Amino acid sequence: MPRKSKEDIAAIYKQMQEYICQMLEAGDGKGTFKGDLWTRAEGGGGDTRIFQNGAIIEKGGVAFSAVHGPTPLKISEKLKLESGNFFATGVSIVLHPFSPRVPIIHMNIRYFEMEDGTHWFGGGIDLTPHYIVPEDATYFHQRLKETCDAFDLSYYPKFKNWADDYFFIKHRQETRGVGGIFYDRLSATSDTHFQEILDFSLALGKLFPEIYSYFMKKNAALPYGPEQTAWQGLRRGRYVEFNLVWDAGTKFGLDTNGRTESILMSMPPLAEWSYQQEPEAGSPEAFTLAHLKKEIDWLTYTT
Amino acid sequence: MPRKSKEDIAAIYKQMQEYICQMLEAGDGKGTFKGDLWTRAEGGGGDTRIFQNGAIIEKGGVAFSAVHGPTPLKISEKLKLESGNFFATGVSIVLHPFSPRVPIIHMNIRYFEMEDGTHWFGGGIDLTPHYIVPEDATYFHQRLKETCDAFDLSYYPKFKNWADDYFFIKHRQETRGVGGIFYDRLSATSDTHFQEILDFSLALGKLFPEIYSYFMKKNAALPYGPEQTAWQGLRRGRYVEFNLVWDAGTKFGLDTNGRTESILMSMPPLAEWSYQQEPEAGSPEAFTLAHLKKEIDWLTYTT
Repeated sequence: MPRKSKEDIAAIYKQMQEYICQMLEAGDGKGTFKGDLWTRAEGGGGDTRIFQNGAIIEKGGVAFSAVHGPTPLKISEKLKLESGNFFATGVSIVLHPFSPRVPIIHMNIRYFEMEDGTHWFGGGIDLTPHYIVPEDATYFHQRLKETCDAFDLSYYPKFKNWADDYFFIKHRQETRGVGGIFYDRLSATSDTHFQEILDFSLALGKLFPEIYSYFMKKNAALPYGPEQTAWQGLRRGRYVEFNLVWDAGTKFGLDTNGRTESILMSMPPLAEWSYQQEPEAGSPEAFTLAHLKKEIDWLTYTT
Repeated sequence: MPRKSKEDIAAIYKQMQEYICQMLEAGDGKGTFKGDLWTRAEGGGGDTRIFQNGAIIEKGGVAFSAVHGPTPLKISEKLKLESGNFFATGVSIVLHPFSPRVPIIHMNIRYFEMEDGTHWFGGGIDLTPHYIVPEDATYFHQRLKETCDAFDLSYYPKFKNWADDYFFIKHRQETRGVGGIFYDRLSATSDTHFQEILDFSLALGKLFPEIYSYFMKKNAALPYGPEQTAWQGLRRGRYVEFNLVWDAGTKFGLDTNGRTESILMSMPPLAEWSYQQEPEAGSPEAFTLAHLKKEIDWLTYTT
């Protein structure tokens, strides 16, 4: 089978966006996505689907883009590439639920190609519970491991550690959540291998709404009050801090005149900051803070 | 008169913090500052005063610090300095009011010295109204110009433009507010000049609570409703975006393991994001957006 072209991959990722949107609408049961088509002056564009009037999901989006043109200097410098034309396509998702009992989730799959044939895949899924519940974290990592293992047994351990390092709020010395998987610059050594990596990204795309529907179904009806909502506000503030200070994709997009509204689709509807808020010892909030650490093996975790 | 030592300057700035805190407590009429002393492992420390239980000011702080020690590599690289010991002291303020009718304000004065005698002063004041009111912006700039003019007629025009460039949210192509003044690396050519620049920073310190008390008194009782509060939330979101993405001081502090809570004292109590929120034509919100631009001469502004 010949290698899929970059246009094929863009078309496949566009279908994946469509699929994910349908599945999330079904999972939420009330809200719908509204598309916002945009074009990029230098070449390409995208379709940012914004979730509206949800029952469980308060704010979020599923963004598709396929952009191309002369490689911006900032990109070629940062990625240490020769000059020439680039092509990049991908699907990015962030969902913020109403309930502090339902986790924030993020997913991204992407493909990058230079006109000289240099290419790679990247992506990841990570989970940010406002309250860490070990059985949920275990479920999440098990599903990721299963999906990784179907392709390459080295993927899960490698990509799990990579996520721990990537989704890290350095100035707080906290992970963003319970991690997940993250990979980048995964290049093919053969046509078969190329198809495998592409299929791996599609498997993650399919897994994503399944996982999130599971959490919506399991946790959306759990009770909570103003105390939990206040904590959610602070955790959302940390999410903002990570995305604006440390997230390479966000910084990069804002630095290279990307489409601001699509990039900042990841912002929560509301975020709070208070000075030196410290949870009471023994509280679920303190438990959460204590588990926002790298190198927790959620597969074998026991309290 | 011999030049003030760096320790003298730190002591004078500490007194200035005290003075500003007292004046702001008087202006608010209800809230009080609570001190939070901290030390820096490598040398020095600070006293972050956090405002609590205010009537007009919802969240804010007046932070003093005086730090020293071997110059961190990131600092010497960025500032193009020889290695050796550094000393830095200053006062930083950000105030977020409850009412969307009262502006957010920021002030900073600082002094930096290397052990080889290289030294400079820096600082600035800028105003971020949730709703731009031309007469308020004119008052603000007039007071800044008067203070600048008492020292050097070149200061106001130069530092006003510098503020326009500095307090700019590049990814939104919006200024943070109506600007103000900003200056950096102002070095003395003689002992007299040194004292003048120090006095200039102290004049700004004294001016600051006067200006903010004026706005508190003038605007805190003006009516507003949920629509104005919603707009305030979005403007506060832009404040977060500026501080976390573009503010050199914030980025630098977070990058060099500064004291996170003190650095992020500038965060609003609450911030909101919604997708592509665009104000109605002819609304006060649209007027504000249209005036978040560089190079507006607020001294001569007429509608």
